[in-house]
Amino acid sequence: MNKYEQNSEVISLTQALMRCPSVTPKDAGALDLLQQCLEEIGFTCHRLTFSEEGTPDVENLYARYGTAAPNFCFAGHTDVVPAGDRDAWSVDPFDGTIKDGMIFGRGAADMKAAVASFAIAAKRVIERSDGKFDGSISLLITGDEEGPAINGTQKVLNWMQEQGEKIDHCIVGEPTNPSEMGEMVKIGRRGSFTGHLTVTGTEGHVAYPHLADNPLPHMAAMVTALDNLVFDEGTEHFQPSNLEFTTIDVGNRATNVIPKSAQATFNIRFNTHHTLDSLDRTVRNLLDSVAADRNCRYELVSQKNSSPFLTPEGHFSGLVVDAIEKRLGRKPVLSTTGGTSDARFIKDFCPVVEFGLISQTMHKIDERASVADIEALADIYSDILESYFR
Amino acid sequence: MNKYEQNSEVISLTQALMRCPSVTPKDAGALDLLQQCLEEIGFTCHRLTFSEEGTPDVENLYARYGTAAPNFCFAGHTDVVPAGDRDAWSVDPFDGTIKDGMIFGRGAADMKAAVASFAIAAKRVIERSDGKFDGSISLLITGDEEGPAINGTQKVLNWMQEQGEKIDHCIVGEPTNPSEMGEMVKIGRRGSFTGHLTVTGTEGHVAYPHLADNPLPHMAAMVTALDNLVFDEGTEHFQPSNLEFTTIDVGNRATNVIPKSAQATFNIRFNTHHTLDSLDRTVRNLLDSVAADRNCRYELVSQKNSSPFLTPEGHFSGLVVDAIEKRLGRKPVLSTTGGTSDARFIKDFCPVVEFGLISQTMHKIDERASVADIEALADIYSDILESYFR
Repeated sequence: MNKYEQNSEVISLTQALMRCPSVTPKDAGALDLLQQCLEEIGFTCHRLTFSEEGTPDVENLYARYGTAAPNFCFAGHTDVVPAGDRDAWSVDPFDGTIKDGMIFGRGAADMKAAVASFAIAAKRVIERSDGKFDGSISLLITGDEEGPAINGTQKVLNWMQEQGEKIDHCIVGEPTNPSEMGEMVKIGRRGSFTGHLTVTGTEGHVAYPHLADNPLPHMAAMVTALDNLVFDEGTEHFQPSNLEFTTIDVGNRATNVIPKSAQATFNIRFNTHHTLDSLDRTVRNLLDSVAADRNCRYELVSQKNSSPFLTPEGHFSGLVVDAIEKRLGRKPVLSTTGGTSDARFIKDFCPVVEFGLISQTMHKIDERASVADIEALADIYSDILESYFR
Repeated sequence: MNKYEQNSEVISLTQALMRCPSVTPKDAGALDLLQQCLEEIGFTCHRLTFSEEGTPDVENLYARYGTAAPNFCFAGHTDVVPAGDRDAWSVDPFDGTIKDGMIFGRGAADMKAAVASFAIAAKRVIERSDGKFDGSISLLITGDEEGPAINGTQKVLNWMQEQGEKIDHCIVGEPTNPSEMGEMVKIGRRGSFTGHLTVTGTEGHVAYPHLADNPLPHMAAMVTALDNLVFDEGTEHFQPSNLEFTTIDVGNRATNVIPKSAQATFNIRFNTHHTLDSLDRTVRNLLDSVAADRNCRYELVSQKNSSPFLTPEGHFSGLVVDAIEKRLGRKPVLSTTGGTSDARFIKDFCPVVEFGLISQTMHKIDERASVADIEALADIYSDILESYFR
């Protein structure tokens, strides 16, 4: 198989996956297609459909080649976010159109091309082993990464544990590079804590403020206090923790009425200086002191989304860094920036690092990835597998 | 006519008016009833229906006895606010039920009893003059005081000006007493200024705050700055001016998204230290300085509702005070507190003071007024007219 054919194969599989309009929670044939490709290579496939009241059913796929340890796992997803305004796209978002060396469409960057790259990388490594492959390669592919993430990776991992399916190391194929291929590997993620704050006063007429207690200045003081809070200075691997208010709402249309209460929501992305519980205490202590100063009442409902984690630099991250350096001639930064990913679930089972394409156009109109970058990614994944099983 | 019969007449007319369910903008026969009563006394009545696109048609009444100057006017309204939860009332809100010396129902305090009291007071004064009455007594009664106040008093006053109808002094029958009859006469009202504030930032993902500019801390700073602003220390006759925020809204349900903008509304009740324009400048100067400090953008849409006014203490307010003191044995406070009233329109035409019943139950379930207070009010209005025309 010459270089041209190898690359064709990655791009062809990427295009085929992109032609399935698998907007969460729809699968639209994407997993069937991937499963067929993996079964041809020799993978044993498990299709896992999970449901939960109040959430849509979601299809997932766990595929494994080999039975021996160690088991190297690739985690990813075939679902995509909606295309948005189709008239704003320069191409059909579900056609896998190639223009000027770029493949355009939903899922190009996030992350059908990465799924295809890993499948083809696995194929190459297995074929090159000539039937003497020792160990296992697996893919954990969900259809619920862009949705509520309830019937996806988390439930597949639980199912695997019940089945005695152990994974030893995992790479997640999310687009980790801000603007150029090979810039960044993610070795951890910040935690996420959401707070729903209600401040209650006493309603009344604006002409008689002494008979009322306006909750809005109290809310403003709480927003300011939380916004000014310095949680930490960051760590060697993490940015400083940061809080952002996302909404404040009252819904009072009467301009002569002081409202009874106001509601606000904030989200904190935090590093390993904190736990979800310590953060809850920090926030409540600050709000208690504002409430005491102002003699007002508040209620906080905490939503503890995810804890921060770090896969310490070492042999595993070294494998990934070396493969990138070899193919692209640049040394990636080991980072923990950005949003959450399904790595937050996997980290409880084995060391996990993330590397994929460029994130710049993900979730946007004209999402795209360069053909050369996809080919490089398949090469890098191949090299990682080769080194891992050497 | 003995005292018993006089009082019966006030209460009977009050009850008859209260039995018309004249919830703004409906008249429900209230003005017909009043017009008939006034025509029997000798008033010339003008029914004035005004309409404006986007607002309901409203009926009003201007009635005048006599043609000579001076013209003493009573201004009031026969419309009422809705009854609200009828099951919560202890009586039918439109039946004029009398229980334990109190007349219960919508409009008892605000302000059908005051309209009836003035009509009966005028009747007495006219009857006592034995056909030798010199001057004019008029009633300006609107059906749009509790509504948008667009097709009511303001348009009647404009019509009067076009007709050459001049009024020299005016008493408004709004319930001015906080808890006891004779406590308070209003000789002015604060102005009202409403501001609609929008703060615009740059939207983004909470995980990448450096790429966004969260408008919510900017909004909180503006709320705090405006809330802390000391406009003045009050005047001899006015409370300090005061600002209240009435709402803050964003409407962002995505807890991982920093919103683009936030909106808030505030209302200022202000005294004669300010004009609508000077207040607009004061607010913009403060917001400009916050915006400069924080490097953020805001937009303010000003809604200049009404200017403050004061009818200086003097002969006219003295007449009212003396009449109250004579009948009730207490000297009322001359106040400018509370919300706005139609006096804000009348003040541009002649000196205006306000005196009526007790405001405690107005707009509430089981609105009511004491029969004795209504009788006292008719006596006080009679005495004011007697003194005015002496």
